[in-house]
Amino acid sequence: MRLKSRHLLGLEGLSKEEITLLLDTAESFRGVMERPIPKVPTLRGITIVNLFFEPSTRTRISFELAEKRLSADVVNFSASTSSVLKGETLKDTAQNIEAMKINMVVIRHSAPGAPYFLSQKLKSNIVNAGDGAHEHPTQALLDMMTLREKLGTLEGLRVLIVGDIAHSRVARSNIYGLLTMGAKVSICGPPTLLPVEVEKLGVQVFYDLNDALSQADVVNVLRIQLERQGRGLFPSIREYREQFGITTERLKKMGRNFIIMHPGPINRGVEIDSDVADSGNSLILHQVTNGVATRMAVLYLLSGVGSNGL
Amino acid sequence: MRLKSRHLLGLEGLSKEEITLLLDTAESFRGVMERPIPKVPTLRGITIVNLFFEPSTRTRISFELAEKRLSADVVNFSASTSSVLKGETLKDTAQNIEAMKINMVVIRHSAPGAPYFLSQKLKSNIVNAGDGAHEHPTQALLDMMTLREKLGTLEGLRVLIVGDIAHSRVARSNIYGLLTMGAKVSICGPPTLLPVEVEKLGVQVFYDLNDALSQADVVNVLRIQLERQGRGLFPSIREYREQFGITTERLKKMGRNFIIMHPGPINRGVEIDSDVADSGNSLILHQVTNGVATRMAVLYLLSGVGSNGL
Amino acid sequence: MRLKSRHLLGLEGLSKEEITLLLDTAESFRGVMERPIPKVPTLRGITIVNLFFEPSTRTRISFELAEKRLSADVVNFSASTSSVLKGETLKDTAQNIEAMKINMVVIRHSAPGAPYFLSQKLKSNIVNAGDGAHEHPTQALLDMMTLREKLGTLEGLRVLIVGDIAHSRVARSNIYGLLTMGAKVSICGPPTLLPVEVEKLGVQVFYDLNDALSQADVVNVLRIQLERQGRGLFPSIREYREQFGITTERLKKMGRNFIIMHPGPINRGVEIDSDVADSGNSLILHQVTNGVATRMAVLYLLSGVGSNGL
Repeated sequence: MRLKSRHLLGLEGLSKEEITLLLDTAESFRGVMERPIPKVPTLRGITIVNLFFEPSTRTRISFELAEKRLSADVVNFSASTSSVLKGETLKDTAQNIEAMKINMVVIRHSAPGAPYFLSQKLKSNIVNAGDGAHEHPTQALLDMMTLREKLGTLEGLRVLIVGDIAHSRVARSNIYGLLTMGAKVSICGPPTLLPVEVEKLGVQVFYDLNDALSQADVVNVLRIQLERQGRGLFPSIREYREQFGITTERLKKMGRNFIIMHPGPINRGVEIDSDVADSGNSLILHQVTNGVATRMAVLYLLSGVGSNGL
Repeated sequence: MRLKSRHLLGLEGLSKEEITLLLDTAESFRGVMERPIPKVPTLRGITIVNLFFEPSTRTRISFELAEKRLSADVVNFSASTSSVLKGETLKDTAQNIEAMKINMVVIRHSAPGAPYFLSQKLKSNIVNAGDGAHEHPTQALLDMMTLREKLGTLEGLRVLIVGDIAHSRVARSNIYGLLTMGAKVSICGPPTLLPVEVEKLGVQVFYDLNDALSQADVVNVLRIQLERQGRGLFPSIREYREQFGITTERLKKMGRNFIIMHPGPINRGVEIDSDVADSGNSLILHQVTNGVATRMAVLYLLSGVGSNGL
Repeated sequence: MRLKSRHLLGLEGLSKEEITLLLDTAESFRGVMERPIPKVPTLRGITIVNLFFEPSTRTRISFELAEKRLSADVVNFSASTSSVLKGETLKDTAQNIEAMKINMVVIRHSAPGAPYFLSQKLKSNIVNAGDGAHEHPTQALLDMMTLREKLGTLEGLRVLIVGDIAHSRVARSNIYGLLTMGAKVSICGPPTLLPVEVEKLGVQVFYDLNDALSQADVVNVLRIQLERQGRGLFPSIREYREQFGITTERLKKMGRNFIIMHPGPINRGVEIDSDVADSGNSLILHQVTNGVATRMAVLYLLSGVGSNGL
């Protein structure tokens, strides 16, 4: 079986079979990472450009590790070090990349749809590493991989996403992916930070965190963008923590355990308490590990090379 | 046959045979780029440092791709991320590179002659990736490769270079190379942006673009450095476009086709119209592709390794 | 024989046998660097992250070259390009690195003890590439390697370190290493820039440079941090040079030769005169060369792989 598209632009529209293929493939690459030499020759001679127009360390390093463990040749490009591309349209950037005969492009961009735009212009495979508030598909795949690894299946799982849903590409990709895989998704956050008509996506909306928790097995805690404070939409850190923080105290009151996830980096003591993040029920570090395996799977499946080299 | 020098500091002084060798070799590497695995083991174990003291994305990525497709080991160094070298003389930088036993150095520097200076101090092969307003030899080589590919020969070809000639290393390298290869070169731009006594180089000078176009087959359009405006030498963008812009309207009036080139990145609607840049007569994206092949050829020929690995 | 620790956090506490093993191994890698293809497959498949929280070019490039010549996979991370990690604790950074299954971490950090902290959290091997004013062990190893290469033995050698000892990790690591190897170490600098009770480490303290020189064979000249001026502790450059500068004139008056070392980059005409730095008695460029070999040795020995691949 193969993916239908040569690109991974988002999880919206991917079938259950495709997501399952991605997760199964990620699991087999997860095994590679435990080997003494965690490297396969799968993408030898393939050139991948990491095109990061937004600052990112975590995702960039995760992709770069995935690429190197697949033996690809990697060229990094970050917009902050690029004066030239500032005055250049994305179209020109795209055409230049194409002209350089680069095989795959991993793009992060603040504009929703930038990866789609590239996919329309290029013969290269495009991987969306986050585009504005639109999608961050590899993050949602690694989240689902981690949940499936821990719990066996996603079917019927009750996942609650807490935080600034409106600005979160992580939330959107998780909603698409989890619903497709048969999970139940609910969201909770300040009303100003929930998208309009979000129920239409098929999620349940909660304004009270305790209510939301009472119907959840898993809590995926979003990072609060501290720089968004003071712009009217956002409560103070103190208020936020009181109403929407995943605190030790709050969980204790619920009287049962929750699986805890967070895409990182964590604001300890803001959206999540350290005790919770570091507890045995937290899958946060598993997410990081699985991130590399997931990205290996995505790059391998999109590349169209015949064998995964395992 | 071999190049006479171990360095590529400029095209001034290179013989017709040497340039032909470079272009022929670039053509064979161009073929490599079309392979499923566009990589050869030619420079395996060779360490190349990309020493960029001026911001550059396009040229740096092109060199880096060339290096990786030759299987070299690549270390990138850009001055903006280097605090240490700020207080260090170029001489000390050079000696340190030499001491680290690096095989080849690709240098871009704002000071004309910086690559020459390095070549006097180092045993490494030096490639000039642009030094001030002096030379940018790989750009001119890729321009000539592209023209030869399209038109079969450079002999007798009438090439017009339009723009800020005085500050352009691209123009200088093209003038040296094209004249050596038997082409006729003319230049056109605002009088304040033409070098003094430039006719002595053997080019024809035009102040009126229509006159210049009437005697040209190829137009190489230079990028206008927008930051140079308002310093007296430079007209407004509007004036510039009116007098020296390669616009759709102007070309239509000429009543025949021109081959269009541009070293990029393009200021669309300033020195060139989008329609012209994207037309079937534009070789701009071929230039980008050939840039990688040209740099592979330069690095291979300078390295002195016996076989090109094809 | 093996190193006792899986990490290289400093030279304090290393035995004479361990340091000798490191220097001997560095010497054999020094031979590799003279080969036409200066590369060994020793660390193939091993992933090394260069985690530089302080700006550094020289040390970073030296490590990167060492890593690539050992065929390791290299991921660079510099804090200046990392917005994400700013808001993240070092603990979280450490856990993330661990989760990504990275084999070795080379860390430079302004906080003394940061490498130790990582070593407590991670299964990866940690190499200290400089932590605050604490230690810079690979610098001291390469200094000792260079001295041993030149003079045959470190036993009984009289090494004088001149400059801002109090803020110098280079000085501290040299003191630990040289004393262990049987050398005699003295220090000289402005009283405000000497650590309190430094004699307890076993070094002799001089406040007068001529007195200090009269009892030394080797002078290791520290770089003066020009940005430290004007903060009260530091004399003017002119005063500093007069009292503590290793000038041509001063050495001439001493009437004999000294071996000259400097960790670089040099402030020519400040802490050292150009003539001295470039003289036949200067080992400065040998230090740079040996830096790569030393780092190859450190990485190889810590990795625990069976064979050095020579």
